[in-house]
Amino acid sequence: MAQNTFDRFYGVIPAGGVGTRLWPLSRAAAPKFLHDLTGSGSTLIRSTYDRLTPLAGERIMVVTGEVHRQAVCEQLPELDEQDLVLESEPKDSGAAIGLAAAILHRRDPETIMGSFAADQVVGPLDVFLEAVREAVHTAATGKIVTIGIRPTVPSTGFGYIRAGERLSIDDAPSATAVAEFVEKPSEDVARKYLASGDYLWNAGMFVAPTALMLKHLELNQPELYRGLDEIAAAWDTPQRDEVVARVWPTLPKIAIDYAVAEPAADAGDVAMVPGVFTWDDVGDFAAIGRLNPASENNHLTVLGDGARVYSDQASGVVVSDSKRVIALIGIDDVVVVDTPDALLVTTEDHAQQVKQAVETLKASGEVDVL
Amino acid sequence: MAQNTFDRFYGVIPAGGVGTRLWPLSRAAAPKFLHDLTGSGSTLIRSTYDRLTPLAGERIMVVTGEVHRQAVCEQLPELDEQDLVLESEPKDSGAAIGLAAAILHRRDPETIMGSFAADQVVGPLDVFLEAVREAVHTAATGKIVTIGIRPTVPSTGFGYIRAGERLSIDDAPSATAVAEFVEKPSEDVARKYLASGDYLWNAGMFVAPTALMLKHLELNQPELYRGLDEIAAAWDTPQRDEVVARVWPTLPKIAIDYAVAEPAADAGDVAMVPGVFTWDDVGDFAAIGRLNPASENNHLTVLGDGARVYSDQASGVVVSDSKRVIALIGIDDVVVVDTPDALLVTTEDHAQQVKQAVETLKASGEVDVL
Repeated sequence: MAQNTFDRFYGVIPAGGVGTRLWPLSRAAAPKFLHDLTGSGSTLIRSTYDRLTPLAGERIMVVTGEVHRQAVCEQLPELDEQDLVLESEPKDSGAAIGLAAAILHRRDPETIMGSFAADQVVGPLDVFLEAVREAVHTAATGKIVTIGIRPTVPSTGFGYIRAGERLSIDDAPSATAVAEFVEKPSEDVARKYLASGDYLWNAGMFVAPTALMLKHLELNQPELYRGLDEIAAAWDTPQRDEVVARVWPTLPKIAIDYAVAEPAADAGDVAMVPGVFTWDDVGDFAAIGRLNPASENNHLTVLGDGARVYSDQASGVVVSDSKRVIALIGIDDVVVVDTPDALLVTTEDHAQQVKQAVETLKASGEVDVL
Repeated sequence: MAQNTFDRFYGVIPAGGVGTRLWPLSRAAAPKFLHDLTGSGSTLIRSTYDRLTPLAGERIMVVTGEVHRQAVCEQLPELDEQDLVLESEPKDSGAAIGLAAAILHRRDPETIMGSFAADQVVGPLDVFLEAVREAVHTAATGKIVTIGIRPTVPSTGFGYIRAGERLSIDDAPSATAVAEFVEKPSEDVARKYLASGDYLWNAGMFVAPTALMLKHLELNQPELYRGLDEIAAAWDTPQRDEVVARVWPTLPKIAIDYAVAEPAADAGDVAMVPGVFTWDDVGDFAAIGRLNPASENNHLTVLGDGARVYSDQASGVVVSDSKRVIALIGIDDVVVVDTPDALLVTTEDHAQQVKQAVETLKASGEVDVL
């Protein structure tokens, strides 16, 4: 290798996705990654950035929507202008991660990128970093490496990755081949996956040489590849705006899993490093209950600076984004999300149904609160 | 008689009581009687006033707190200055109704007053008026007359009145004597009361010659009587403010039931006219559910102009005093009361516990929202 392996590493943080199931906390204008959902004092994107710096330093690129430029810059003041990639409109993860790969590849074709979504909760740090280190070493052997999460419950909310045979890579003792990616299973199937030990959660974490990412993108999504390559060629030139305005809107919308990971796995080019750290994509308010243990005294998880919550025989989750007094009386496993212009009252068991509520509100024209 | 019986009639509306169980809708600064709790388009005090005008015309006196002067005048623009009696501090119903009696008696000793609380829901109007007419005729024979409500359920939330023998009064065929007033019963006892047919709810409605009211007040609460008489003597003179400021704060706090009605009943001076109209004191949010039938489509009672409520598998009561979007998902018999600075989430079964929440908030110093 021309460089030390870790000198080649570049973090990429795709920061898209509204987090519809976290409405009304998460909004189009203030998506999930701009919130502190764990009471840590940091927003999810800030925590994601801080998690990568021990390995990447300031070599971290963020891909997000043009509308979030200001909020992201406030969260990440150290972010260099060249590391901020703004989408004029959302085009799914294939275009977002593909563009980062194409730009980084133009700047340095030896780059190994590591893509980690901006809205996940991970810990402890040292276990995460050890998995990323193994993934970088594995990627350096010419693999697209996904970090699979060792499941703790038979979740039906995540896709799974079936581990193949163990690879023999120096400095990556736990790396395996990937036999296949599988979609979100039924509960019965999820239970079998958990029992078998061969299936890990697909957390959407990818570490790979940009060259290999782009090779598979070109093979499987030639139109997307050509568009991204044209944009990347213009990116660090005065033509950027003109080319982006012309090409970006024409790009197909496709997830990176379908555009690259799954076909590359079929070609035998994907490896996996198991992650034994805690991981959650904070998909709904029930997750917030899991991630923020309730106080022993009142069985309530309360999230929000200066929340003024009174409870009597109540349990569940309260997210307070206002300074209002909230009184909860005689109600169990409740979810109350209080924001200045919208209020959600549901139960932990119905947390997934929030998505439909948002869709109905959108269809009814109540778009000012979405 | 010197006058036609109805020329002697004067309506009195005591408008006190915060309605703690209706927090956070009802507040110290915006008590129950200033709200429209039935979706009628009228506040309770406005409806109470309108209910009396067919019999009293504009001969209606309102007794309320000094702090509610402006709100009451906005609700009742036709109220004459001489018909507005303002309390500098609350002194319970004995002083409030007693002062009205004393002032009206000074102005015309032949007055028959009819006292009807400002925060009750009554209907239909013609049945109510017929009961009041009988009560006025009965009062004219020298009785304190209470209108008892024929119970429809074995309520443990109201006091009861046991009917005595039927009186023989022209124009008041249904009037009876009162055997006794009884306190709120246990559920078993309430069931017996309902079955017997002799027990009616005590709705706190009194029709009586002021002279007789004051006679019993003097007998049973001489200190209160003397204070009220001194204030009444000064009321329509320039000395009013000085005398009120000196005497009112010294008056004992006692309910009119104990100060007058119960001892007068023991003396055989109280009669009852049964009311077969619908009556509710709107004591809690469960009452609001009863009084405002849920929409057939979504099983939700929604109160509030411009409420923006989305519901999915939810039932109960929503009171919206804000313009926020409220989304309810998968929750039954819920009570959500949304105001600009305070939010209540409870269930219809726990509606009575709201009072304790308010007491705890008061003890915690959260008085800005009470």
